[in-house]
Amino acid sequence: MLAVQTIYLPHLHSVAVALALRGGPRYEGDGEGGLTHFLEHMLFRGAGPRSMRELMAAFEEVGGEPDAYTSEDALVLHLEEVAPARLERACELLASVLCAPRYEDLEAEREVVREELLDRAHELDDLERSAAFSGHPLARSILGTRADLARRSVDDLEGWRRQIVRSGNTALVVAGPVPPERVRAAVAPLEALPEGPALAERRPLTLPAGPSWRSRREPGERAELRLSFRCPGDAEEGAAATRVLADLLDGGPTSRVPQELVDAGLAYDAGTSLLSLPDAGLLALEVACAGSKLSAAARALLGVAEALRTGVDPAELARARLRREHRRRRLLDDAPSQAEWTVRRLLFGLPAEREAALDAEDAVDPDRLVDLARELFRRERLTAVLLGDPPRGEARRLRQRLAAWSPP
Amino acid sequence: MLAVQTIYLPHLHSVAVALALRGGPRYEGDGEGGLTHFLEHMLFRGAGPRSMRELMAAFEEVGGEPDAYTSEDALVLHLEEVAPARLERACELLASVLCAPRYEDLEAEREVVREELLDRAHELDDLERSAAFSGHPLARSILGTRADLARRSVDDLEGWRRQIVRSGNTALVVAGPVPPERVRAAVAPLEALPEGPALAERRPLTLPAGPSWRSRREPGERAELRLSFRCPGDAEEGAAATRVLADLLDGGPTSRVPQELVDAGLAYDAGTSLLSLPDAGLLALEVACAGSKLSAAARALLGVAEALRTGVDPAELARARLRREHRRRRLLDDAPSQAEWTVRRLLFGLPAEREAALDAEDAVDPDRLVDLARELFRRERLTAVLLGDPPRGEARRLRQRLAAWSPP
Repeated sequence: MLAVQTIYLPHLHSVAVALALRGGPRYEGDGEGGLTHFLEHMLFRGAGPRSMRELMAAFEEVGGEPDAYTSEDALVLHLEEVAPARLERACELLASVLCAPRYEDLEAEREVVREELLDRAHELDDLERSAAFSGHPLARSILGTRADLARRSVDDLEGWRRQIVRSGNTALVVAGPVPPERVRAAVAPLEALPEGPALAERRPLTLPAGPSWRSRREPGERAELRLSFRCPGDAEEGAAATRVLADLLDGGPTSRVPQELVDAGLAYDAGTSLLSLPDAGLLALEVACAGSKLSAAARALLGVAEALRTGVDPAELARARLRREHRRRRLLDDAPSQAEWTVRRLLFGLPAEREAALDAEDAVDPDRLVDLARELFRRERLTAVLLGDPPRGEARRLRQRLAAWSPP
Repeated sequence: MLAVQTIYLPHLHSVAVALALRGGPRYEGDGEGGLTHFLEHMLFRGAGPRSMRELMAAFEEVGGEPDAYTSEDALVLHLEEVAPARLERACELLASVLCAPRYEDLEAEREVVREELLDRAHELDDLERSAAFSGHPLARSILGTRADLARRSVDDLEGWRRQIVRSGNTALVVAGPVPPERVRAAVAPLEALPEGPALAERRPLTLPAGPSWRSRREPGERAELRLSFRCPGDAEEGAAATRVLADLLDGGPTSRVPQELVDAGLAYDAGTSLLSLPDAGLLALEVACAGSKLSAAARALLGVAEALRTGVDPAELARARLRREHRRRRLLDDAPSQAEWTVRRLLFGLPAEREAALDAEDAVDPDRLVDLARELFRRERLTAVLLGDPPRGEARRLRQRLAAWSPP
């Protein structure tokens, strides 16, 4: 049955409704690439009694445009600011979208997705996944290929919808000024989803035998470099310590990446990102800078990783704890963020109390972090990806530096 | 003296502090290009008794990294989520940053800004301003040129700081769960800014004799097109109607640009933007799409503008009013957005009650909008800018379409 959780925030004035289904590349089989993402687009082209235009007007009445996205392993529909009095209506609309899409004008939406494929925004992610998860469904792009897109029919989408729209494959979180008993009544239309279990992962992930490397030529003076290290997933031992490590790297202005890369004048943009799947993650250090500075930037990023293997100052950990206190306070006023975090935890059967997750981070000590850094920041866990067109000598120096990297 | 306003939101858990000074291209004279922006960067490299590192740690203690940016006519410092108990300390830090910057390591920060210049994010804005405000200081880039940047010294920055850091040139807004009397005490350190009047605008803006056109070749399959129309500024008659017009164009999923461009399959990204200065504005319709579709996208955008000249359906206006109701509700929980909007109004001596501004939008009727559309969507007010490398025939068709455009 449908997993539902209420986060009661009586002081706020809007309700966030987050609904997630397992889907995306992780669950798409051969020949199914990009189905979840295309379905995400088509779900809003009319549903039940409503044309697309009427459906959009109805969403506007309850609180605004639905935000929808497809990740590596989920399709998420999110209404961030529903008027509390219209929560029932919002849930009816979501049920209608999931259960009775009209798939109006497939060709126009195919063009929209074709346009989305031209957007470079996800290119670095795509490159990284293709290398870090090589040979696994997760290596595929969320959007699928142009060829995938070109051949999709309404029947394909409808077939896929029937596979993923099942109560056991879906989770729902309502966060805001609506008490749990009213939420239970309001979500009734969504509890009528067809019965059925969660999709199962098709293939377990194995540890990579890196380092691996991918690059793609993009004209321009600026280049983007990402160094990703395979790390524990959300359901694994070490998940909390990994989040703390990411925070030491880039949780605030005193953390290591901004200090060593930006404050030092190497780049305007540098940071970390953390992809967390239940059974695997990627902790990435990244920088965008002039192609002529790439090898210096890579040296600095690798230096940051190496330094964490040698020690973590308790004062640094105290700063991370301070940032976490601020985060707890911010979350009190941020229903959308709470809903989105929680729905993913529910969807994958993980403990879904945010406070407990933050408590687990508080409990991580310096020794644990050094041990983790020693485990993660190793050659064989590294995937390096580059987007850009650096000067030839610089590209060579970068490759050499990465090939020779072997932390002490 | 310093203009201060409190927005008391007792139900929230964090305080937003927004501080703005007149500055930016509008107030920079010949030879001063980019000074405000570079100063914005250098203000955080140590202040008063604190090194840069200590300063960042102190900001982290009060609530997080300061957000700072330079616009066409202002330098804005924004602390979005201060712990209420630490508001006094936050104000001390802001005063220290403004009054006693240490300018540590200018060369490193010069490199950071040089890197920022490589970021394409502001290129379309720069092109648009250079054409729409040709011959005026506003035509210059906010970041200044590489040559400007190369020659700046600490003395230049300090000289400029002394010009803009004056009580009469500064406005401050505190929004959150701190009552006005405590805010008054907390902001005392900022009330000690040197006395002095607001900077005066160097040159009035005249209406353009368009259409004007700028393009810049950027390799890639995708191109960005923006059609900007000179419109009333925030202090001018017609400001509220202009905001409503922007909302009809792109305020929600049922508004005109998403329907005619995205839903129709022409693009993945299309929308409007509204630049509002006190005495002038730019209302822009824009699209990013395959270069091969540019002339079709331009036709659709111009069609949207033309259609507004012929009529506005009262039902459409009712939808805009509905969106505005949602906006009022959202603002109740959004201290940073309220602080940022209000501080700009204070800085330029405009009425600073958000509710009153929304009421003025409610009062706009269809006839007023049609009149305004007829006034704005005209050849002579048009600036068209293109970033991309469309196929040659397509670029020619686009130019022809724009050159021939003359709304009925």
